[in-house]
Amino acid sequence: MTARFALLGAGRIGKVHARAVSSNPGAKLVAVADAFEKPAAELAAAHGAEVRSIDAIEAAGDIDAVVICTPTDTHADLIERFARAGKAIFCEKPIDLDVARVKACLAVVRDAGATLMVGFNRRFDPHFAAVRKAIDDGTIGKVEMVTITSRDPGAPPYDYIPRSGGIFRDMTIHDFDMARFLLGEEPVFVSAHAAVLVDRKIGELGDFDSATAILETVSGRQCVISNSRRATYGYDQRIEVHGSKGMAAAENQRPVSIEIADGRGYTRPPLHDFFMTRYTEAYANEIAAFIGAMAAGGAASPGGEDGLAALMLAEAALKSVREGRRVRVDEIG
Amino acid sequence: MTARFALLGAGRIGKVHARAVSSNPGAKLVAVADAFEKPAAELAAAHGAEVRSIDAIEAAGDIDAVVICTPTDTHADLIERFARAGKAIFCEKPIDLDVARVKACLAVVRDAGATLMVGFNRRFDPHFAAVRKAIDDGTIGKVEMVTITSRDPGAPPYDYIPRSGGIFRDMTIHDFDMARFLLGEEPVFVSAHAAVLVDRKIGELGDFDSATAILETVSGRQCVISNSRRATYGYDQRIEVHGSKGMAAAENQRPVSIEIADGRGYTRPPLHDFFMTRYTEAYANEIAAFIGAMAAGGAASPGGEDGLAALMLAEAALKSVREGRRVRVDEIG
Amino acid sequence: MTARFALLGAGRIGKVHARAVSSNPGAKLVAVADAFEKPAAELAAAHGAEVRSIDAIEAAGDIDAVVICTPTDTHADLIERFARAGKAIFCEKPIDLDVARVKACLAVVRDAGATLMVGFNRRFDPHFAAVRKAIDDGTIGKVEMVTITSRDPGAPPYDYIPRSGGIFRDMTIHDFDMARFLLGEEPVFVSAHAAVLVDRKIGELGDFDSATAILETVSGRQCVISNSRRATYGYDQRIEVHGSKGMAAAENQRPVSIEIADGRGYTRPPLHDFFMTRYTEAYANEIAAFIGAMAAGGAASPGGEDGLAALMLAEAALKSVREGRRVRVDEIG
Amino acid sequence: MTARFALLGAGRIGKVHARAVSSNPGAKLVAVADAFEKPAAELAAAHGAEVRSIDAIEAAGDIDAVVICTPTDTHADLIERFARAGKAIFCEKPIDLDVARVKACLAVVRDAGATLMVGFNRRFDPHFAAVRKAIDDGTIGKVEMVTITSRDPGAPPYDYIPRSGGIFRDMTIHDFDMARFLLGEEPVFVSAHAAVLVDRKIGELGDFDSATAILETVSGRQCVISNSRRATYGYDQRIEVHGSKGMAAAENQRPVSIEIADGRGYTRPPLHDFFMTRYTEAYANEIAAFIGAMAAGGAASPGGEDGLAALMLAEAALKSVREGRRVRVDEIG
Repeated sequence: MTARFALLGAGRIGKVHARAVSSNPGAKLVAVADAFEKPAAELAAAHGAEVRSIDAIEAAGDIDAVVICTPTDTHADLIERFARAGKAIFCEKPIDLDVARVKACLAVVRDAGATLMVGFNRRFDPHFAAVRKAIDDGTIGKVEMVTITSRDPGAPPYDYIPRSGGIFRDMTIHDFDMARFLLGEEPVFVSAHAAVLVDRKIGELGDFDSATAILETVSGRQCVISNSRRATYGYDQRIEVHGSKGMAAAENQRPVSIEIADGRGYTRPPLHDFFMTRYTEAYANEIAAFIGAMAAGGAASPGGEDGLAALMLAEAALKSVREGRRVRVDEIG
Repeated sequence: MTARFALLGAGRIGKVHARAVSSNPGAKLVAVADAFEKPAAELAAAHGAEVRSIDAIEAAGDIDAVVICTPTDTHADLIERFARAGKAIFCEKPIDLDVARVKACLAVVRDAGATLMVGFNRRFDPHFAAVRKAIDDGTIGKVEMVTITSRDPGAPPYDYIPRSGGIFRDMTIHDFDMARFLLGEEPVFVSAHAAVLVDRKIGELGDFDSATAILETVSGRQCVISNSRRATYGYDQRIEVHGSKGMAAAENQRPVSIEIADGRGYTRPPLHDFFMTRYTEAYANEIAAFIGAMAAGGAASPGGEDGLAALMLAEAALKSVREGRRVRVDEIG
Repeated sequence: MTARFALLGAGRIGKVHARAVSSNPGAKLVAVADAFEKPAAELAAAHGAEVRSIDAIEAAGDIDAVVICTPTDTHADLIERFARAGKAIFCEKPIDLDVARVKACLAVVRDAGATLMVGFNRRFDPHFAAVRKAIDDGTIGKVEMVTITSRDPGAPPYDYIPRSGGIFRDMTIHDFDMARFLLGEEPVFVSAHAAVLVDRKIGELGDFDSATAILETVSGRQCVISNSRRATYGYDQRIEVHGSKGMAAAENQRPVSIEIADGRGYTRPPLHDFFMTRYTEAYANEIAAFIGAMAAGGAASPGGEDGLAALMLAEAALKSVREGRRVRVDEIG
Repeated sequence: MTARFALLGAGRIGKVHARAVSSNPGAKLVAVADAFEKPAAELAAAHGAEVRSIDAIEAAGDIDAVVICTPTDTHADLIERFARAGKAIFCEKPIDLDVARVKACLAVVRDAGATLMVGFNRRFDPHFAAVRKAIDDGTIGKVEMVTITSRDPGAPPYDYIPRSGGIFRDMTIHDFDMARFLLGEEPVFVSAHAAVLVDRKIGELGDFDSATAILETVSGRQCVISNSRRATYGYDQRIEVHGSKGMAAAENQRPVSIEIADGRGYTRPPLHDFFMTRYTEAYANEIAAFIGAMAAGGAASPGGEDGLAALMLAEAALKSVREGRRVRVDEIG
């Protein structure tokens, strides 16, 4: 049985998900909606789908699931609407920038009994997933400490920054989710530092471009996160988990892995320079997992509660920076 | 303009090429032929193509190109037939096991003015291609010495061995092509050694499972090839080119690149265990290059002469093993 | 001119320094003192030196410098005594566990105009020193973020823990010094977390075995430190410095660097399992630098103020853990 | 009991061995001889030894062993002389460039019952020794194929080349010994190619600068050797042994192992640029093994027969190049 999809939002990430849906043998992209006609038409054509309005998709009998890739401030409304319409929902992170709004939205999802998956794509990266598997298999024993390095090749456009919710809600949120995915216990404390080191203009827009955070669980497990909007050598994405029996680490990925040796030494090419090429497999695996969850008729993972939890960690980190202290996560919301 | 393809031979490698054709936006798989009905029907269905006989494909007006994945002993006949029918031809290596037969076949292709590409997929591996690019860019200066390591995870089925033409024509032929691709000069001498170290039964079937060869060009450039039908740690595929200014090397590839550290040390997972997963990108790039050559209306590379040249090196290597001496390549044919 | 040395304390680290002095062509080990006769006699014999009392060394005309390797609670007294006696002083870290005592001691050193070097050996590791050189050369631009990983293969003996001053003053102090060495600005804020994850008994002794800290400088540069008393795979010592133009990182070191590949993957042996083999070259370079500073007649680096600064960061980290907040370093002392 | 040494030849390699003897706690350098007074005096002074003539050393009662580092054409005479004088002998490779002369010399050693060790230092490199240990431990099963890469950073001085015996006897001889050390069976066939690619002047002097060889044992085990007098990135010394259960490989070594990442990629520094820094530990271990053999009163390994066997492989390789054929090793001598 083929899962029939509609895609809401034909932008950059929308294209990524359209491809993931189309190339999945268990799915078919039926409709595309976008506020602008041209990108919607182009993306629909490329995948043999048709352009429809959101209203039409909501009412359609030939759509089983929606993928929400519209701007963040529309996510919660769309989730509620399609939950009520009986569709399975895959929504890009975050659900909303406001914790209360997320909670209200999740209540609607719960009431409707809808399947909701949140787009924390990194959980589906084969390398990160293999680290998690090493934990689950007991290979490294009981988890003690986690290190997450996440550095972007460059900052987002200035006009995006005010809408982004700031570095913790926009960028670090992926790392907060990864920390939860790996720690095996919920973080209860957060200490964070943040600064403007890369681009003064980012500071003028009220955001930071460099941040570090420590998460601590109730038993004392610690996770360190290091973030920057600058990495001249590519998209730096590493995790390292230390347990009682050993360590599991996922290394960086590069599109071409040759080595040139000469008088200056041994040089390997830069890393992937973009999240879309870095996480190609992750996006495909993610949609496959969503389709699997739909088929199983149960909850998707990561679900709405995971989206909420990561957002609360982002809020706690921001509060920690502002107040100069360790923040309990349950102070949030 | 979309290139319309027929696939001849729905076996293992046929499936690989069917996928490469289907996922290429400039191509469409129209027809599949196979001596057996079921695999043909299944593969056709999977790609929205139809099953046709070879005769029908030859006569068809809606087919621009054929991909030949049938058994080796049918290659030369099919190439001639489709060259005369005015189709572009992509043929899996080798064209034939016999040098004279290959020469006759290429004469027909030449007369027909057909586009013929031979399936030396490794030239299209992004890592090997990047090494070649480093040579072309002058990064490592004038090429002096090349080392090629090619070790299979396991031997082919016993029943294949007598039909394979032996290790040099079946396995090393890829390395001979790679040597030509990298040396920048034609090899003129070959010295080779071969033995049965992995499986005595292979020797009883008249073949070897372990081989080494040295190729030398007219100016003295040397290439060393090391082959085995055994590699417990996966599909070992490395090249290393030393030039007057430095070295360029392509490392092995693994599907998952985590590292586990414990009391025994630091362990990374095995390599790809199969040529199809190792060379997924290479197969896609190869078909793309073929489509590009068709569109340009010119010769494809690697073409028939490349297939012949690699086969002659294989013959020379076998002769070297048998006669215990350095063989001039022009002694062959 | 040969620098004539006396060694105070013939224990584990004393032996390391005795070897470094003896094998330096510009130095000679003349005398060894220890509270116990046998180790003093053995170490003296091994290096062609004689056993003397501390009083005799203080009064000796044939001693230019002392290396203090006695228990921590004797360091400050000995430094003062030998500073007044006109000897150059190399003292193992820390000068004292108490900030006020250190300050008093340094005042004496200053008044005496003595050369004092503190044993932060890691600055002299060739790999870490090369990272610092990359910073100094401008290779990575302006420093922005530093990551220090320091994990011991095992915890110290239980009876040492109460005397150690706790993990921050005993273990992390090396990392605090390394942070100062690399950041290019003084840290002004510290946030730290600490827990007992490895061995409950360490907690019962009032200490932690797992700790993380963030240091922040006045311009917002951040350093993350991750510490554990457990590393099953050896002595894990890595640094990573991110600057505006790139990154410089020092990898772990292993005594033997082979690789074994088999069905389980590719395995390299564990790291060094002990600080003395890991930092052999560092200890030799450190003593060489001290001898160089003596010859130049000037200040040694790292000097007493560096010892004090690292200790203040340790105090600030402990205060941060206890009070659950970001601590200003100038709150200390 | 301390082994008392005399060193014959105070040149570059003589200094290396003097240091190895001096820093060994079981040995003492008593005397140095050299045709030139100044280097002898300087080296003796640096190690607290005295200058003596070769005659005096031969007659001395306070010398147990000699280390022969004089020019190659004096080795065999000196070995015979000191064998008859009852001294243990460590001799730099080769014993002589002529197989018959070596055989005659070894007969004298045998008659005298002398301990003779030949300076194949690479056997004592900790990394190469660990590969051998992996073989001995059965970790990689039965050895099948060996790959040895040995590339010098630069060619020797022109005036040395005519005296060197040519690349096979001067440079590859180390690799021939390593092949014997790793193959577990004696090579019986050799095929080799050689050319002048680096420096035309080397060809004018009658030598080659680039060479490859295949060795084959009676059961078909194969070793491939790749040599060049050029490596812009440092002293390239790698081995790789493939067995029935897996592979063991020793990687290159570099003095500093940092990594710099920027827009051009990830760069590690060049390798050691000289055999003396690359093989520092090997030289120390080698002398230690010699002292151990003396103490045990038995044969040293590698001994005279190993020196002979490697020389015969060099002769066979040269014959193979000249005659364009596979040469049986027993054709030599």
